[in-house]
Amino acid sequence: MADAKPSASGAAEGSLAEEFAVPSQVEELRGRMAEFAERHGVAGRRVVLITSGGTKVPLESRTVRFLDNFSSGRRGASSAEYFLDAGYAVIFLHRHRSLYPYTRLYSGINLLDALTAEPECARVVVDQSALPNIAAVLTRYQAVKAAGLLLPVEFSTLSDYLHLLKAAAQALSGIGSKAMFYLAAAVSDFYIPASEMPEHKIQSSNGPLQISMKMVPKMLSPLVRDWAPQAFIISFKLETDCSILLERARRALATYRHQAVVANVLDTRRGYVVVVTRHEQHELQLSDEDARHNVEIEERIVSNLAAAHHDFMLQG
Amino acid sequence: MADAKPSASGAAEGSLAEEFAVPSQVEELRGRMAEFAERHGVAGRRVVLITSGGTKVPLESRTVRFLDNFSSGRRGASSAEYFLDAGYAVIFLHRHRSLYPYTRLYSGINLLDALTAEPECARVVVDQSALPNIAAVLTRYQAVKAAGLLLPVEFSTLSDYLHLLKAAAQALSGIGSKAMFYLAAAVSDFYIPASEMPEHKIQSSNGPLQISMKMVPKMLSPLVRDWAPQAFIISFKLETDCSILLERARRALATYRHQAVVANVLDTRRGYVVVVTRHEQHELQLSDEDARHNVEIEERIVSNLAAAHHDFMLQG
Repeated sequence: MADAKPSASGAAEGSLAEEFAVPSQVEELRGRMAEFAERHGVAGRRVVLITSGGTKVPLESRTVRFLDNFSSGRRGASSAEYFLDAGYAVIFLHRHRSLYPYTRLYSGINLLDALTAEPECARVVVDQSALPNIAAVLTRYQAVKAAGLLLPVEFSTLSDYLHLLKAAAQALSGIGSKAMFYLAAAVSDFYIPASEMPEHKIQSSNGPLQISMKMVPKMLSPLVRDWAPQAFIISFKLETDCSILLERARRALATYRHQAVVANVLDTRRGYVVVVTRHEQHELQLSDEDARHNVEIEERIVSNLAAAHHDFMLQG
Repeated sequence: MADAKPSASGAAEGSLAEEFAVPSQVEELRGRMAEFAERHGVAGRRVVLITSGGTKVPLESRTVRFLDNFSSGRRGASSAEYFLDAGYAVIFLHRHRSLYPYTRLYSGINLLDALTAEPECARVVVDQSALPNIAAVLTRYQAVKAAGLLLPVEFSTLSDYLHLLKAAAQALSGIGSKAMFYLAAAVSDFYIPASEMPEHKIQSSNGPLQISMKMVPKMLSPLVRDWAPQAFIISFKLETDCSILLERARRALATYRHQAVVANVLDTRRGYVVVVTRHEQHELQLSDEDARHNVEIEERIVSNLAAAHHDFMLQG
């Protein structure tokens, strides 16, 4: 997220429903998120909203083609696990079919390559060498589920995402500074307004394609100022050019006045990030030894932010 | 695929490697496909190349954003199963992480919701009510795999797809009319040439986005004329507007002179298609009773085309 003036975002907020189709289930989901936040808030638990995965931006209203952002959802899904380990309850607002906590560990594996039929016992069993550590992961997943600590909410399009983020902010407003927003989703900066979109599939016989896209309103501004003024809010900044990264992170922080930016470069994002706050910056880096022990950078990010959130709550 | 003149495609063929980055493994994959085709051809088996899923078109060379086509790969993956049932060997050229034969039946299910740990036996077993019919599907999958009847090849970008399609055509040239091309992938009609692509992530601070895309050369033309002149070639035409569908299918057939177009409309594609050949058209439609028995339209499409391929081989 970057450089729009807060005033522009304020204007955009009012017109959200005009420019972006409202997903049909938004009321029900807002209710479920509010109930989740209240239940855990009452129990003294902190709640993090994690956004994860890329957004889909349709080019046609009966959509065949769309613009997308590179994101497997790996960072959001693994971070969810570390937040759960740190005692948070997690609302996981993620792109449909992006990586999911725990299950992500087996995402590259064909399920049918990992099973063995035992017809004599009418049983199908898991080949545990094909799904490493599966018994322990399954136990942890089931414990999280049984305790009601993870609420998954799905989006596909940019419109879904924007409306659900606003609904989540409203749902979390009741728990004040106990709420963290961890905005790891790769949200499109550009879109085509419904009014300018062709209904039918664009015909290639019409010749080369010219696409004009408007800028997506920066939701971080109304989120920080109006929707969740008491919450602890983290945005992410991914660049491919490391020379502009920190300057852009600082600029975002100055513009939106939220609590931290996790800055990272596409090529090195799994081993190095900088957590930039108003007065400090923390470099988090995995060593060769960490890599040998399969330590993930998200463990460090979550540990850093959970501590900062703790301090923030004491001040608030 | 649509309306470019064959001459334009002929020109494009020569410049394929100039405009579209060659995937690193193309030589190795061509060799594996050729070995596969030869082995099955010698055994008297027909071989179908199925393309499946959408293509990714990068907007930046270090890609954060890309244009994509709507396609889960469902049609390609289910068709592969019916071709295997009909005695074909299958090269499955599919988009990375799109639906896969057999496994597709469980794609909407979280693996961890379908497993039960039995710590006392150090075993993890499948809950067969969560994965319907899993024992039978697993048995079939393993039989196909053991017989070496399914060769998966993956692509992500449009460039990967174009080079691998050409490599597949070369690999299948040795078996003549025993080869079928079943081009179900949703291939982009537009792309940005490498020479016109920005290296780094497009900055939203530069304002609204204008994208100019060139037309992708129609590979169907060199495929039919030069790369696989003896093969039985099927293209697909998906439209959202049913009023132009059949005319476009007929025009494609007249332009490229291949054997059939499977024409379908986005909203009804799972229950109705028209197989258009030079002198006929066959409407294939699922009845309410078919739907009750979970019959899939791909079973009808494959049955129709396998019979037509048989006739084609007798004539050839």
